[in-house]
Amino acid sequence: MFKLLKNSLKSRARLAVLTTIHGRIKTPFFMPIATKGAVKNLFPDELESLGASIILSNTYHLYLQPGLTVLKKHGGLHRLMGWSGPILTDSGGFQVFSLSNIRKIVPQGVEFRSHIDGSKHLLTPKKILEIQSVIGSDIVMILDICPSAKDNKKKVAEAVTITTNWARQAKRANNKLKRGQLMFGIVQGGVYRDLRLKSLAELIEIGFDGYAIGGLAVGESSQEMYQVLDYLTPEMPANKPRYLMGVGTPENIIEAVKRGVDMFDCVIPTREARHGRLYIRKNKGLEDGFYQTVNITNAKFKNDTKPINDSNLKDYSRAYLHHLFKTKEPLALRLATLNNLHFYLTLMSDIRQAIKNKKL
Amino acid sequence: MFKLLKNSLKSRARLAVLTTIHGRIKTPFFMPIATKGAVKNLFPDELESLGASIILSNTYHLYLQPGLTVLKKHGGLHRLMGWSGPILTDSGGFQVFSLSNIRKIVPQGVEFRSHIDGSKHLLTPKKILEIQSVIGSDIVMILDICPSAKDNKKKVAEAVTITTNWARQAKRANNKLKRGQLMFGIVQGGVYRDLRLKSLAELIEIGFDGYAIGGLAVGESSQEMYQVLDYLTPEMPANKPRYLMGVGTPENIIEAVKRGVDMFDCVIPTREARHGRLYIRKNKGLEDGFYQTVNITNAKFKNDTKPINDSNLKDYSRAYLHHLFKTKEPLALRLATLNNLHFYLTLMSDIRQAIKNKKL
Repeated sequence: MFKLLKNSLKSRARLAVLTTIHGRIKTPFFMPIATKGAVKNLFPDELESLGASIILSNTYHLYLQPGLTVLKKHGGLHRLMGWSGPILTDSGGFQVFSLSNIRKIVPQGVEFRSHIDGSKHLLTPKKILEIQSVIGSDIVMILDICPSAKDNKKKVAEAVTITTNWARQAKRANNKLKRGQLMFGIVQGGVYRDLRLKSLAELIEIGFDGYAIGGLAVGESSQEMYQVLDYLTPEMPANKPRYLMGVGTPENIIEAVKRGVDMFDCVIPTREARHGRLYIRKNKGLEDGFYQTVNITNAKFKNDTKPINDSNLKDYSRAYLHHLFKTKEPLALRLATLNNLHFYLTLMSDIRQAIKNKKL
Repeated sequence: MFKLLKNSLKSRARLAVLTTIHGRIKTPFFMPIATKGAVKNLFPDELESLGASIILSNTYHLYLQPGLTVLKKHGGLHRLMGWSGPILTDSGGFQVFSLSNIRKIVPQGVEFRSHIDGSKHLLTPKKILEIQSVIGSDIVMILDICPSAKDNKKKVAEAVTITTNWARQAKRANNKLKRGQLMFGIVQGGVYRDLRLKSLAELIEIGFDGYAIGGLAVGESSQEMYQVLDYLTPEMPANKPRYLMGVGTPENIIEAVKRGVDMFDCVIPTREARHGRLYIRKNKGLEDGFYQTVNITNAKFKNDTKPINDSNLKDYSRAYLHHLFKTKEPLALRLATLNNLHFYLTLMSDIRQAIKNKKL
């Protein structure tokens, strides 16, 4: 269930509550990434402390490792990883095409060889739902084809056609899901207005619990992304959640929220943490310059006794984190991840507050 | 201050309390290793939850990185790393000889080039104390020479002579220490009874707050180690703590406790965790077979839904940890480290209980 609480008068931003099997989530929200069943370096209780209300995992990865037997034995991903909140699982369509060298679209779905051991697999729209039923995902994504930013319009059009076909098959197979699991369709169409609108219209006709916008943040400019949102979100059902997959920078998120998007996920906070790049909030606003990124491995932090941040990491200095990176101590990654996820999750809470206060 | 509480009647094991600037510690105890100012993967509050009452860091490493300026700016290591309990710092004599390719013993101390950037340094017995004063160590180790297990008796004898000379210089320089910092001498002499007893006698004559046994666990057999303890510990002052450096396996620790040793440190629990080797307690006793080690990456754990252990990691299955290792998730190292340190610290608490209950 998706309950709209407020529509902004200043933009198309909105506040809502999405109800899932494992709890209610205030939108707009950001999902930390636990691709293989673990958020990098963090335990579930730490994610909760950070304010994460939902996490994202991946059907393709979990299907290959640890596999369905292990997932079944644990009664699903929640118990396996010890996270009791909502989980969204991406279908893995994107991963089949980005990780597997050998894959082929066949009438039933997609055939591929595992990037881990070369074993051969066939994923169908129905099978993807069955796997996500075993995983126990609160939000299930259907199998789609995500074209590359380099693909021409013909390729992108083909991807839309197949994605719609698969969406119909998924809808017919939705009895494979557990009671309460929400199923989202994925709009494709690259940066082509007609294809995007066609894809969306077809998915709406089929009918889903929410609509994701896939195939963005794959190499196009931020302006192109905003343009797609400009014409796409007004056509999306107002009473269903909208999910912009794999996005993005803090600016991308704010701009997308203004265009009516409710849900986000991105590797940025965890991936950048690995490289020592920290997101630092400069003021409580959301206007230009409200944050900066710094590379903590830079020599200028060697003697910096200021705290990493003034919130969840006020007891650790920047000099200490610099030292931990320089000496390759694994604690460095934990601290940097805690900083960046705190930044992203606080950003979302500030965005919700700004919509509430009529500032966004 | 070292207060003896109980001498076992079944062995030379003893119970005592060692008072340091940052708190009192029950002996026998084990020190988790924070060589460069962080225990691998863990925060100080986690160490406290595990029951760690003191940790070990390293003068040589901290002197090179982050260096004295950073340490001074933070008022010492305690604040830098956020640990408020006692800290022992090894002098780094061992590291100068094991890590630095280019080092030379000169009349004043040891000259070496940094293993990090090749910069040239001179460490003297006095300088080592000055550094440890900046670090703010609760227990300070003097500069020593730790001969290799392959060195002949002549080499080992030279090491004893120099170590004694340096010990005298350290004693004369002990005004460099802060009030309350405890200074330990280090007995060398390899597996040579006469050299060991000579080294000990000379150190006792100089007078220290505690006596460490260095140069063991460097390649000799466990039996040779026990033999050294058999003749050495009876000659050590009963009213001072005894520290067996770098030891060891659970069996080594139990055997050394029986021979009157009070303090231990070892890389085993954290290093083995990195390789997926877990220490698992089988029963509450300390007799042969009370534990086993398993390699969690072994295929037999793929479907094992049993908890990692029944104590601090009862919410995570062995199958999950297996999966995390197989997918190279950094959380694997945290879980394995939490398991192994819990094993070691529980072992020490059980040893203290066994002495109390007249069972050891």
